[in-house]
Amino acid sequence: MLRLDYSNCLSEIVGEQGISRQEIESLKEELVKAHKNVYEKKSKGLLGFMELPYKIDDAKKIESFAKKYKNKFENFVVIGIGGSALGNIALQTALRHPYWNLLDRKNRGGWLRLFVPDNVDPELISGLLDTINLKKTLINVISKSGTTAECLANFFVIREKLIKKVGKKNYSKHLIFTTDAQKGYLRELFNKGEAFASFEIPANVGGRFSVLSPVGLVSAAFTGIDIEKLLSGAKEMAERCKTEDVYKNPALMYAGVQYLLYKKGKIMNVVMPYSNALYGFADWFRQLWAESLGKKQNNAGQIVNVGPTPIKALGATDQHSQVQLYIEGPYDKVITFLSVEKYRKNVKIPKTSDNHYLGGHTLNELIKSEEQATRLALARQNRPNCTIILPEISESAAGELIYFFELATAYAGELFNINAFDQPGVELGKQLTYALLGRPGYEEKRKELEKQLNKNSKQMHII
Amino acid sequence: MLRLDYSNCLSEIVGEQGISRQEIESLKEELVKAHKNVYEKKSKGLLGFMELPYKIDDAKKIESFAKKYKNKFENFVVIGIGGSALGNIALQTALRHPYWNLLDRKNRGGWLRLFVPDNVDPELISGLLDTINLKKTLINVISKSGTTAECLANFFVIREKLIKKVGKKNYSKHLIFTTDAQKGYLRELFNKGEAFASFEIPANVGGRFSVLSPVGLVSAAFTGIDIEKLLSGAKEMAERCKTEDVYKNPALMYAGVQYLLYKKGKIMNVVMPYSNALYGFADWFRQLWAESLGKKQNNAGQIVNVGPTPIKALGATDQHSQVQLYIEGPYDKVITFLSVEKYRKNVKIPKTSDNHYLGGHTLNELIKSEEQATRLALARQNRPNCTIILPEISESAAGELIYFFELATAYAGELFNINAFDQPGVELGKQLTYALLGRPGYEEKRKELEKQLNKNSKQMHII
Repeated sequence: MLRLDYSNCLSEIVGEQGISRQEIESLKEELVKAHKNVYEKKSKGLLGFMELPYKIDDAKKIESFAKKYKNKFENFVVIGIGGSALGNIALQTALRHPYWNLLDRKNRGGWLRLFVPDNVDPELISGLLDTINLKKTLINVISKSGTTAECLANFFVIREKLIKKVGKKNYSKHLIFTTDAQKGYLRELFNKGEAFASFEIPANVGGRFSVLSPVGLVSAAFTGIDIEKLLSGAKEMAERCKTEDVYKNPALMYAGVQYLLYKKGKIMNVVMPYSNALYGFADWFRQLWAESLGKKQNNAGQIVNVGPTPIKALGATDQHSQVQLYIEGPYDKVITFLSVEKYRKNVKIPKTSDNHYLGGHTLNELIKSEEQATRLALARQNRPNCTIILPEISESAAGELIYFFELATAYAGELFNINAFDQPGVELGKQLTYALLGRPGYEEKRKELEKQLNKNSKQMHII
Repeated sequence: MLRLDYSNCLSEIVGEQGISRQEIESLKEELVKAHKNVYEKKSKGLLGFMELPYKIDDAKKIESFAKKYKNKFENFVVIGIGGSALGNIALQTALRHPYWNLLDRKNRGGWLRLFVPDNVDPELISGLLDTINLKKTLINVISKSGTTAECLANFFVIREKLIKKVGKKNYSKHLIFTTDAQKGYLRELFNKGEAFASFEIPANVGGRFSVLSPVGLVSAAFTGIDIEKLLSGAKEMAERCKTEDVYKNPALMYAGVQYLLYKKGKIMNVVMPYSNALYGFADWFRQLWAESLGKKQNNAGQIVNVGPTPIKALGATDQHSQVQLYIEGPYDKVITFLSVEKYRKNVKIPKTSDNHYLGGHTLNELIKSEEQATRLALARQNRPNCTIILPEISESAAGELIYFFELATAYAGELFNINAFDQPGVELGKQLTYALLGRPGYEEKRKELEKQLNKNSKQMHII
């Protein structure tokens, strides 16, 4: 069972840089309100992510689908970006071999290689097309709206190559669409027969909260991840967090502690797993935390420009990169360690003929000692930190972790009094992109833009 | 030639969140002083990184070495951490195929696959050993001091496996050590014949400034990167930055602008390449900036707890993850875009039968439009940002970029009035690790530690 240790956030350990037990007590009313608000939104059907752990039947269907089709293919490609890619990468990194795509089929247990080219970088996409044989490739195009520019652009590129390779009659046999059940461009294309299968993203599940929907589950199933266990782990966490008692609800406590520390100037939240396998989750968390909590307006319409900045780091690696700053720099951070009690492998460091002090230990002891040492060193320098402890990295633990972070984000949204489920700030960038690309309907925007670019070009400061 | 566009950092574009030209003018005296201090340190022989671009003969020797031995091996493994790994990864990511290790030897031009397992995670190391055939593997063990615990632990593990695989007589033929010329444990082992070759890290080159030394060059040469061109690019930048005129010295301007923005509360510096290939440089830069500038004491011995926090992001991908926060959150960031004028590949988005607006464009146009749109959207919301423009990604451009960032870091150290070349904050963590592992000489530390752990265990707050 996942545990949250917030001891090192408390002022009895880290002094005035931390929070007192009294401060948690004083926040209790707000915490209960946050909890109730979230469950009220859920009961109104607004928070689909909270229903996903219970959809075991959907998971079973996806597993059957993966078993049916895996033998026809060698590669599985996810065409998606943001919430349609980060969860896929996190699950793969956490639950499969660290060099999965280099293993042969037998060592992959017969499952597929996975590629998630989540950018429109021409060098990346061209490189992917050099590397994989499209004849042996199954492609899942994921976009909830069905209109995401990056997703469609990569899809158009790959569709053309696919047609060249397998012919007009066969290319749809390599395509799955994962999108809204009813509307959007991808759904229309599916209805026209452009993909042989489709999966539905529930309308009330936002992109960054969608990893436990078909968005994350389909690619996971095709690499042999036990997605039923993933959901059952998430369900355990969901059940555990039904209480409004902050001392029993780890997601609520995490949100509360982070909120209080933010108010005390700990405006960055560094998520630092001591595990390469969990580094993908740090990246996935970055989107969840940043896009949900970084907001201009609060729920009352006031300008607040609020939001903690999530940062990813990796232990022990970043002890040789970032920890100097965390220990000695400004008091502007809280560290969230992700700790693994038992790694899936045990590696002995052999004794040496010269009796080196490391000989006879294990890498496990070394990395655990480093983790403990870093936590202690930070605490001694009055740097607040907390630890999320996973007994081991498994499907079930990953499910718990996902749901824990998602629910904590929803709670934090209530505490910050902002809407954690929209992303109005990226709209302008999208419109400007459309204008630059000459999309019909954006002619006015384009003129305005050209004016600004002309004006700016007179103010260029370039060395 | 690399260019720095700092227009969008100026108040004429981003209002009071930016800096005025007058502020740059007023900083001129300090900038000249910073420049002079850096060159004075160089002339005293303290800043070895500034000499590296001129060591073309060393590069030639490394190239001959790589040509001589590459055909005996299939894999090149770097055993190092922090400054002994991040530069290697950055060069490989920037200058080789995005799926290099999946290409066959012919498509790699006969060069080696590269693995940089820069952690002591038992799952990672065990996974690596499953994946590569040690008989065909050349291993470069890199540690300047020759005592880095993570490096030695992984070395001991791999040495034992290697002996099992190729025998006591042959294992040293698979090992290179890169370390100090005279002292340290690794140098001693080399002198005992444990490696068939060694390379020297100059004593005056710090780990995070060492990518243009054998630390970064040897692995680059074994993957076919033209390391002479890399150095010549760095040299061009070095020559260009010999002037104390901030309007002609891009590294000095970058340091100055970042320093002024930090003073205005832009305490995070997000490095955001619009290129997957350059994402490794963002990670490399994180170490350089954080470890160099994050310091407790200034040069006068006063407690300052200073230091900007570097953050890595990736365009266009992070428009779907972090940009919401950058646009709407607190005014606490400056964005440093890394922009590529001409990608090495051109990918057409085919026209579609339904005349989709993306059809007929290229991925190149799409990603460039997104970059421009994001820059403009940030500027319109008064979010300072600057852009480092590379004409293309090449060995020469990578060399320029490396030297630019290294020198800017040295300048910034002078402006912040701290020592950019030490890392005292990580010492405590190391000592605590030694104590936990029972290293001889740390018995007292261990007792003290056990006392603290006992005390803390009574204050555990875990859910």
